[in-house]
Amino acid sequence: MSDKQNENTTSKGINPSFQSRKTRKGQVDAISLFHKLRQGSHTSLSRAITLVESTTFVDQQNAQELIKLCLPHAGNSMRIGITGVPGVGKSTFIEALGSYLTNKNHKVAVLAVDPSSSVSRGSILGDKTRMSRLSQDTNAFIRPSASGDSLGGVARKTREAIILCEAAGFDTILIETVGVGQSETIVHSMVDFFLLLKLAGAGDELQGIKRGIIEMADAIVINKADGENVKAAGVAKTAFAKALHLYPPKSSNWQPKVITCSALKETGVKETWQLIESYFRQTKKSGHFTEKRAGQNKFWLLQTIENQLKDDFYNNDSVKRELPEILEKVAQGKLSPFQAASDLLKIQ
Amino acid sequence: MSDKQNENTTSKGINPSFQSRKTRKGQVDAISLFHKLRQGSHTSLSRAITLVESTTFVDQQNAQELIKLCLPHAGNSMRIGITGVPGVGKSTFIEALGSYLTNKNHKVAVLAVDPSSSVSRGSILGDKTRMSRLSQDTNAFIRPSASGDSLGGVARKTREAIILCEAAGFDTILIETVGVGQSETIVHSMVDFFLLLKLAGAGDELQGIKRGIIEMADAIVINKADGENVKAAGVAKTAFAKALHLYPPKSSNWQPKVITCSALKETGVKETWQLIESYFRQTKKSGHFTEKRAGQNKFWLLQTIENQLKDDFYNNDSVKRELPEILEKVAQGKLSPFQAASDLLKIQ
Repeated sequence: MSDKQNENTTSKGINPSFQSRKTRKGQVDAISLFHKLRQGSHTSLSRAITLVESTTFVDQQNAQELIKLCLPHAGNSMRIGITGVPGVGKSTFIEALGSYLTNKNHKVAVLAVDPSSSVSRGSILGDKTRMSRLSQDTNAFIRPSASGDSLGGVARKTREAIILCEAAGFDTILIETVGVGQSETIVHSMVDFFLLLKLAGAGDELQGIKRGIIEMADAIVINKADGENVKAAGVAKTAFAKALHLYPPKSSNWQPKVITCSALKETGVKETWQLIESYFRQTKKSGHFTEKRAGQNKFWLLQTIENQLKDDFYNNDSVKRELPEILEKVAQGKLSPFQAASDLLKIQ
Repeated sequence: MSDKQNENTTSKGINPSFQSRKTRKGQVDAISLFHKLRQGSHTSLSRAITLVESTTFVDQQNAQELIKLCLPHAGNSMRIGITGVPGVGKSTFIEALGSYLTNKNHKVAVLAVDPSSSVSRGSILGDKTRMSRLSQDTNAFIRPSASGDSLGGVARKTREAIILCEAAGFDTILIETVGVGQSETIVHSMVDFFLLLKLAGAGDELQGIKRGIIEMADAIVINKADGENVKAAGVAKTAFAKALHLYPPKSSNWQPKVITCSALKETGVKETWQLIESYFRQTKKSGHFTEKRAGQNKFWLLQTIENQLKDDFYNNDSVKRELPEILEKVAQGKLSPFQAASDLLKIQ
């Protein structure tokens, strides 16, 4: 990361940037970035997210300082999770919804949680040309998924990026995920509203849906409901509405709804947004919105602690050396899981 | 626990029980218990489970020694989880199924996982009179739920009790749960076959079913299908069969089935057992049975480690003192969950 800190350092006159870098780089970096980010600089926001994603110790110190500065200005956005299998048209949908919103003077940030990105270097949002209109929109900010060794790491970085985007004045955060592994659950735990994007298929609409995903959805949007697909989309809508009805009411008291939409023809986009708005109205009025946010914050605190405890344990050299053989013995029933755990906890 | 170790201690003559208690109590206890348990003594099995449930350090040492001795003789049973809300007739069903099995020369152990038992002192199986016939059957063994501070603790004890029962020669282990909190998931993770007991209700059959529970079921048994209920049970059967069809195939390739049954009239019990038997035949042939057991063992190892790491952390005095205030700040968005976690991990 190349720094441009000159604007904010004060005294001495001689090469303040160099001096600050040596003596109090952390603070200057964070404060300078914070101010530029608050002024709405997309470049600074990008740089801030890069700082949060960095794994070096100094960067992490600066990142935490920056987050601390941003927190009082964060939280005032609608956090919306969007999931769907590859091919369902997520990019087109986000482009359509995002453009609709910037036209209505919203400031829209698009983030992604893609646990496969560390391997594939970003299979979603990696290519901004997939959202050509939105990526040139000054009221929109698009950021590909952080890469990382673990989904937990990617999740942490995304969650901190939300705070940065909010402090930078974005009032709508769209978080996209392809739903590899547990990524949907992770995204669900950091958003207010969770949207499942589906295609109208031929026949068995509900087959192949990942377990638990329907239960998480606040809305199911049947995409590509255009041309010859219109009829199939209607059939799918009925099937999903029935499926949603099988579940007990949510703690939000929100009854999830199904909408058909054509991101290409831009039909159903307005209806989707009206639905989302009515969710926010309802849950803010009932207090569920605030409760859910507070619960999510607590969840992330405990989650972070527990992830760190596990990381420390599994990265311990003795544990790393002994674990494979012990796991094998346990799998074969030669060693009790409880005895093995106790042995491993002793050697760490 | 009162000990009767005289039979197994050897030398000295004078008060061997007292001597063994002072010098090598652990080994004698475990070995003696192990032998009697292997000979099929129900009293020794009871005592062994009590040992496993004890929280004192010495008892835990002995318990681990005993488990180690039992492991080579464990694993040869059908582990069957049975869940259903209160009033569905679990006791009557288990009594009917258990008696049917002992008549066929099976040896049946009935355990329970009830996280509420530490409060209510055993709301299920607490009263053996609820299974009067089975409790007098010499080929059956009934044990109420362990009590404990945490579901994790109850789960560990139950899992060890399974090993003890198997070493004692029981070939069928029925594990009952009322499904409070996460108890169904916990039971599901320790059994080969998971059975959901339901009642035929009026109308909306699927309403009020706990999230995720249908996905876990290998069979749904509609109980009390007798007298005036027969028709309603048929309706419920169809509704559940449809609901089951909404889910993607299981990794076992087993297609979950719905059966109607009257535990009272003892109809459907034989069919239930035939279904369970065909599950075991199919999964043993495909290798899924062995794979699932190995996976469960590994899961329990990692689970135990992680529970222990968390327990140690949350029981740390400084953490206990600081956590409530920090949680509150995090909930209100005044402190970043990640910063808070890092602070807490430093003070432990």
